[in-house]
Amino acid sequence: MSKRLVIALGGNALGKTPGEQLELVKGTATTIVDLVEEGYDVVIGHGNGPQVGMVNLAFEYSATHDGGTPAMPFPECGAMTQGYIGYHLQQAIERELAHRGIDKPCAAVVTQVVVDRADEAFNHPTKPVGMFYTAEQARDIAERTGYTFVEDAGRGYRRVVPSPIPVKIVELPIVEQLVGLHSVVITVGGGGIPVVEKGPGDYEGVAAVIDKDRASAKLALDLKADMLVILTAVEKVSINYRTPEQRDLDRLTVAQAHEYIAQGHFAPGSMLPKVQSCIDFVAHTQGGTALITSLDKAREALQGRTGTLIVKE
Amino acid sequence: MSKRLVIALGGNALGKTPGEQLELVKGTATTIVDLVEEGYDVVIGHGNGPQVGMVNLAFEYSATHDGGTPAMPFPECGAMTQGYIGYHLQQAIERELAHRGIDKPCAAVVTQVVVDRADEAFNHPTKPVGMFYTAEQARDIAERTGYTFVEDAGRGYRRVVPSPIPVKIVELPIVEQLVGLHSVVITVGGGGIPVVEKGPGDYEGVAAVIDKDRASAKLALDLKADMLVILTAVEKVSINYRTPEQRDLDRLTVAQAHEYIAQGHFAPGSMLPKVQSCIDFVAHTQGGTALITSLDKAREALQGRTGTLIVKE
Repeated sequence: MSKRLVIALGGNALGKTPGEQLELVKGTATTIVDLVEEGYDVVIGHGNGPQVGMVNLAFEYSATHDGGTPAMPFPECGAMTQGYIGYHLQQAIERELAHRGIDKPCAAVVTQVVVDRADEAFNHPTKPVGMFYTAEQARDIAERTGYTFVEDAGRGYRRVVPSPIPVKIVELPIVEQLVGLHSVVITVGGGGIPVVEKGPGDYEGVAAVIDKDRASAKLALDLKADMLVILTAVEKVSINYRTPEQRDLDRLTVAQAHEYIAQGHFAPGSMLPKVQSCIDFVAHTQGGTALITSLDKAREALQGRTGTLIVKE
Repeated sequence: MSKRLVIALGGNALGKTPGEQLELVKGTATTIVDLVEEGYDVVIGHGNGPQVGMVNLAFEYSATHDGGTPAMPFPECGAMTQGYIGYHLQQAIERELAHRGIDKPCAAVVTQVVVDRADEAFNHPTKPVGMFYTAEQARDIAERTGYTFVEDAGRGYRRVVPSPIPVKIVELPIVEQLVGLHSVVITVGGGGIPVVEKGPGDYEGVAAVIDKDRASAKLALDLKADMLVILTAVEKVSINYRTPEQRDLDRLTVAQAHEYIAQGHFAPGSMLPKVQSCIDFVAHTQGGTALITSLDKAREALQGRTGTLIVKE
């Protein structure tokens, strides 16, 4: 059986406009196919922060002015980004696979991820999405819709949505079928379309953003992956980041990671969720490891020559 | 081996707003799961006319006013609708499957469909998309972008895009893997994201709309389906439609269909492409048949009790 890799792609692997994204995914595809060439079955999770913001904004703007299009709920905006990003990614990966003479199908699967309505995050929405409003507009919309708004760095008021923990990947059986037949699968885009489970098999969209590293860690666990690879802007995880005492880490055990987290070495909303996702995976799997590195160092890192490897002990 | 059905869903199976669509797909899912219960492996193609219009319009409006979001190319808008419609459809189908105790995974696959750059349709774009403009605005945009505009029934000028014939379904191997394992697959949404093939495995999006019945017929051929089922607004195909001589057809051979087409019985842009798609499939397959009927009569029709069956001879 081939070894399984789950790759979590960061925002730097994609782009802010369709043109930029179409260009950036070429480099991303090169790295992904490098890993395919190393002999792995590859499953790809990706973020959608800027993209879902863009879709949400376009619909919100058009609906609140006289664009003549309906308001678009947040989960539906996320579903749109899975189509949009998936299309660009699979097209670039297919091109790179064909270029290297590798006969492997690739496609993005529309994927819902269940969150728990009782998740503490629903009481403390933190992720800003959509347009900036004045205090008065924000108050009006909040009264009408129940949305939560926060003041954002002097630029106005923005809606915030919760960021709950992923509980279940609804389309996991589809992903398993495809990986089992060695296809390259793109899934849990943007952390997955967030849904709650109202009854067995009965899901309903909910306004939330699931962290894509957390969703990819859950995916890696469920697929019994050999490795979770989180690709980000830096080559290695560091302690004392951006201080004279900065030390880049080659290897990190779960116990050390917990210690560094307690010491506040990793920034919330940045390296912290990545390290936590790696712990989630490594601590709960049999023999699996996790790797954090940059897109352009991924192949080297997989060969053990750079990156930060997170291991159980 | 189970028998394979390819179902082409018409616009009436979906909706014009997210709320309407979420409601309508429940009935659609009931019909689809009826067919699953009849023992078929089911693959679903669907249209996206109103939906891609909506996405295109929201982005066009926001980009041409001060919404602050980039312009969105037409193929990318189509990709978004595959995520948006796929999400609602698969959620409704999963719910209905679970409700009836059927353990079958379901998901939408982001799907590109190759068209031929030399297709005659590129010389005669016919499908109106996006916003209405004044003659002057249309001329300006046409000069800047090379878009074609036509005057639309006194309401202003609209961009038109070509509707070429589907040549190849890029992600067919993924669809085959999933159908082979008896999953319910949603694919070629909106007729597929239209692309041209620049070299082996090298695809590029192109502004076009592929007829969803044509794409579904191609899919049925490629999958060696036992039946192509086109679900539309009427229970049966008719000749002399909406005249005192209207006659509803139970059964139609390829030769008869050609004769009725020559006699002008089927409206272009409505029943004509459906009958043509059925001919395409039936004439080129071994033993496959096609069925045209309404969503609510699909199960009965599959049992041979209503609908119009198209057969080779």
